[in-house]
Amino acid sequence: MKRLRAEVEKKDGEFKISHLPVHICSYNNFPTAAGLASSASGFAALVASLAALYKLPVSPSQLSLIARQGSGSACRSLFGGFVAWEMGTKADGTDSYAVEVAPREHWPDMHALICVVSDDKKGTSSTSGMQRTVETSPLLQHRIKEVVPQRMNAISEAIKGRDFDAFARITMADSNQFHAVCLDTEPPIFYMNDVSRAIIALIVEYNRLSLEAGGKRKAAYTYDAGPNAVIYAPKENMKEIVQLILAYFPQKEAFKDVNAVFGGEAAKAAVPTGFNEAVAKQFEVGAVKSLIHTRVGDGPRVLGEDETLLRPDGLPKTLA
Amino acid sequence: MKRLRAEVEKKDGEFKISHLPVHICSYNNFPTAAGLASSASGFAALVASLAALYKLPVSPSQLSLIARQGSGSACRSLFGGFVAWEMGTKADGTDSYAVEVAPREHWPDMHALICVVSDDKKGTSSTSGMQRTVETSPLLQHRIKEVVPQRMNAISEAIKGRDFDAFARITMADSNQFHAVCLDTEPPIFYMNDVSRAIIALIVEYNRLSLEAGGKRKAAYTYDAGPNAVIYAPKENMKEIVQLILAYFPQKEAFKDVNAVFGGEAAKAAVPTGFNEAVAKQFEVGAVKSLIHTRVGDGPRVLGEDETLLRPDGLPKTLA
Repeated sequence: MKRLRAEVEKKDGEFKISHLPVHICSYNNFPTAAGLASSASGFAALVASLAALYKLPVSPSQLSLIARQGSGSACRSLFGGFVAWEMGTKADGTDSYAVEVAPREHWPDMHALICVVSDDKKGTSSTSGMQRTVETSPLLQHRIKEVVPQRMNAISEAIKGRDFDAFARITMADSNQFHAVCLDTEPPIFYMNDVSRAIIALIVEYNRLSLEAGGKRKAAYTYDAGPNAVIYAPKENMKEIVQLILAYFPQKEAFKDVNAVFGGEAAKAAVPTGFNEAVAKQFEVGAVKSLIHTRVGDGPRVLGEDETLLRPDGLPKTLA
Repeated sequence: MKRLRAEVEKKDGEFKISHLPVHICSYNNFPTAAGLASSASGFAALVASLAALYKLPVSPSQLSLIARQGSGSACRSLFGGFVAWEMGTKADGTDSYAVEVAPREHWPDMHALICVVSDDKKGTSSTSGMQRTVETSPLLQHRIKEVVPQRMNAISEAIKGRDFDAFARITMADSNQFHAVCLDTEPPIFYMNDVSRAIIALIVEYNRLSLEAGGKRKAAYTYDAGPNAVIYAPKENMKEIVQLILAYFPQKEAFKDVNAVFGGEAAKAAVPTGFNEAVAKQFEVGAVKSLIHTRVGDGPRVLGEDETLLRPDGLPKTLA
């Protein structure tokens, strides 16, 4: 950021804030190192905060280039709404950044249910895992050259056209293929476990019911570098999906219906009519630790002084 | 087999046995539909028996063309020893057959430990699964064209040169890639489960210990269309491997030491010095249902009349 800092210094008026040290206090309300993009949100927040403090004259896409160096997917978190991470063509990665595909207001009906899955074993970090995949997977280059560019175009079109069926098909196929190249790594990387597999089987069967009745796909699963499922669906299907997940994964705590899909009633386990219940077994309480129902959000925001994490003397209000 | 039958009829002397109906009785001592090639052994035995009965003037490779139509991998089971299934180039598959790479006597030191793994869910049959992979996996064609031919040559060379390290590396990489294209199928196919994953982690760690000490790979895992592991290793490592598997997968029944690697003592659980025990958790009794220690075998054999499965009246001695 040397060049940017020099830019700022020119503009600095009364006193050079760019010469002062900074105290940084970070708080993340998402599970850490669980494959839920906690490092992405953290690095995006760090870069966006510093850019706001120094009033850097840069776009979110330019900032995404910097955030990406902390955690690849952090580049996407500089935006709200629907975001594409452009692969770029340069060897040094300087044209690999994020761009907005559509703002959050474009498709408010898109909801997500995050199933936080327990895992016994310490996972592989997504950054070191992907480096090993690049070095050893014979399938990865074919995926990068022949498959991903087409899918990027197709899913951007699906988002622009609010075509959930196409969005779902591509999302699931690409989640599968990402985990396929992880398996094609030496030694192989497994992020999904038996619980993840069971959730896939439930969504496949849930979609089959609709497709065989002449309808379209009603939900899509996707897995990042961990066993947790993110299930995307139009809001109208979310009640059925939560009921289905509760039927196979009993929960310790009551479902928090923050988006009011149960109309004030308590969420109960239920399976849709005609659903082949044998596609998965029922798991014990705790196999899915918690359910988070969320929607497409916005990007980094500057909060007011009353929400600061620092005390007036510049030290953190709470220490971890 | 019409043409072959006509051949035989010409030769038929005293009476035309090729005009007589046959009673076929089949018995298989391997678990059925568990991804342990039970259908391969059954179809190979059927084809080999009929060929022997009719004294068909054909080679095992020619018979493998017929056996392959019952179950793809049956073509390999017409031989003993080390066998390659040639992909062939014709669209009708008439040049896709098996050839011997080396007889069993070539590498008697090659042993195998089969870990029979429990699975809750009814699996996908390997034949229908592979058809769906052919139709939907974007990675499969790349695997077939760019990866498999090189690996077939390399592993044949490894077998001819009795190079266990190369054999192990290729075997594990190709098992991983087969399961990767299964995952890249729509909807995805999972044959391995958490127990399979744990066995992979154990073998990876067991090899890491040896490699980091400047040695070579000491074992190789491979998984067919099911969760069961087949662990290949030189005989001298089998004691350590059985002990390691027993440490993570306690057994109901005592290990049957048919190849005398424990020198008369009972097999006990043990982990090699320096082994990182955290790579997997210990499972409950029954997660691995049984262990079968075996070696490279021979092909189909014609047994004596005292081993027939039929009574003198032509009906089966026992009915399933």
